[in-house]
Amino acid sequence: MESDFIAWLRGRLPSHARLRLGPGDDAGLLRLADRAECVVTTDLLTDQVDFDLAAADPRRVGRKALAVNLSDLAAMAARPVGVVISLALPRVGGLQLAKSIYEGLLPLAEEFDTAIAGGDTNTWDGPLAISVTAIGETTARGPLQRNGARPGDVLLVTGEFGGSILGKHFDFTPRVREALLLHERYELHAGMDVSDGLSLDLGRLCDESCCGAEVNLNAVPIGLAARRLSDERCDGQSPLDHALGDGEDFELILALPRTEAMRMIAEHAVAVPLTIIGRFTEQAGLWQIDASGRRPLPRRGYQH
Amino acid sequence: MESDFIAWLRGRLPSHARLRLGPGDDAGLLRLADRAECVVTTDLLTDQVDFDLAAADPRRVGRKALAVNLSDLAAMAARPVGVVISLALPRVGGLQLAKSIYEGLLPLAEEFDTAIAGGDTNTWDGPLAISVTAIGETTARGPLQRNGARPGDVLLVTGEFGGSILGKHFDFTPRVREALLLHERYELHAGMDVSDGLSLDLGRLCDESCCGAEVNLNAVPIGLAARRLSDERCDGQSPLDHALGDGEDFELILALPRTEAMRMIAEHAVAVPLTIIGRFTEQAGLWQIDASGRRPLPRRGYQH
Repeated sequence: MESDFIAWLRGRLPSHARLRLGPGDDAGLLRLADRAECVVTTDLLTDQVDFDLAAADPRRVGRKALAVNLSDLAAMAARPVGVVISLALPRVGGLQLAKSIYEGLLPLAEEFDTAIAGGDTNTWDGPLAISVTAIGETTARGPLQRNGARPGDVLLVTGEFGGSILGKHFDFTPRVREALLLHERYELHAGMDVSDGLSLDLGRLCDESCCGAEVNLNAVPIGLAARRLSDERCDGQSPLDHALGDGEDFELILALPRTEAMRMIAEHAVAVPLTIIGRFTEQAGLWQIDASGRRPLPRRGYQH
Repeated sequence: MESDFIAWLRGRLPSHARLRLGPGDDAGLLRLADRAECVVTTDLLTDQVDFDLAAADPRRVGRKALAVNLSDLAAMAARPVGVVISLALPRVGGLQLAKSIYEGLLPLAEEFDTAIAGGDTNTWDGPLAISVTAIGETTARGPLQRNGARPGDVLLVTGEFGGSILGKHFDFTPRVREALLLHERYELHAGMDVSDGLSLDLGRLCDESCCGAEVNLNAVPIGLAARRLSDERCDGQSPLDHALGDGEDFELILALPRTEAMRMIAEHAVAVPLTIIGRFTEQAGLWQIDASGRRPLPRRGYQH
């Protein structure tokens, strides 16, 4: 099956200035910019964990497999260069499934100017598994890391949170353009993308930065989907609970000086909403603040 | 489970000069040499296809998952720099299995000076799947490709062929050192590694180079394992049949001028045996030559 599939794929792939050698040889060859470092990230998506193939359009599954990796590059403020894609396909309908997955991810690869540098396509008796590895390059500013948040920095987020399961977990736009632009024009101390839950991932950023954070609950941008999910599920979880713990928002968390954050917002630096939702503290731990005061904020989200 | 696992892994990983940032951040950061191109390859190994977890030591499975990728870098005469590793683990015993897989691959990564740059570790209801992506860099000689064989070039191979299923498919040494050294010191026109079968992969190299090849059957280095397998199976396949079609030998096929091949052999350039087994021809197709004459050589091997 793989040779037929590679023939089909070669016909579908646009040429790409960064790709000297693509699918068909033993490896792909990517040109990185001079002095850039090679940024590499990988995500493995599996049926019944990251998607439900019985219910989902495989094109959306393919798009998601690429998008989560692009989001990791965004988290580092790295420019995407190329990806390799491995598929473990169920035996029945594998070839058509592989094509649908690629049809879903190719437009996103094109949108983010990312070369398909290779892959490995197999059939087996197990369910669908998709592994994507993305290669990016650092810009002149270097990488944006998790470990640079300082007490006094504000906590700024892109977009809205919660209820991603209703659709955004498939259709989100990785914040690559925003991360590159903000990292270039403003002084960012730390950043990451929210894949597992706002509070859980914020806790991780604090751990790496050896500091704590306070979140102003009233400031958290709650998505419409979080409200819908709260209504539909009637499980006692408020829209705010969903925003703080749902995961798969794929928005950015940034730590930066307050003056820089104010300037960024005043300048309407990017089209996506930017919201200051708290600040980083010397005291370790996560804290939530609302009208009733200040108390610990539990870390909630998707634990792998 | 993943956070415990990452903590365990961080404790096990040696520091690596090429790795600026490793497992734990959103992505890994690798330094490539100046002017080097980024070589990327990926292989996905699945239970019951590439190994049988019920019968195999998971350390050998982990070693193999890395070794096949290093072999692809060898095929391009690229120097290994780093790898990312994704695991889809069965729910029962997943953490121990993950540790065993890493215990198998870490010594090989160290032997080939390859940084563990990141990964993604998940549990699911499916069987074990391991995806490894290896990043390498080209040397001053550039990459060794499949498409450069010329009529008149000799066909030279490293090592021996056949019967890999008896053990070599787990324990082979990827020909990284040999590829780098031979590519540096001799004029190689084309090369690849044999993963699916000597005749099948030779056919692929010929297709990419728009030429054919003649194989002198008497010259093919037949492994002891091919003879053992032929004896054990009694399936009418000769040791030579096994050498031509078994796959997973992970030896190199090289196309180069006869004078260069003779010099390479005379100089004992590498410790592993080098054997001229044929030549490339203007006429397309594969041909076998023995005492009974010249006739087509069927492409046999593992079809994905």
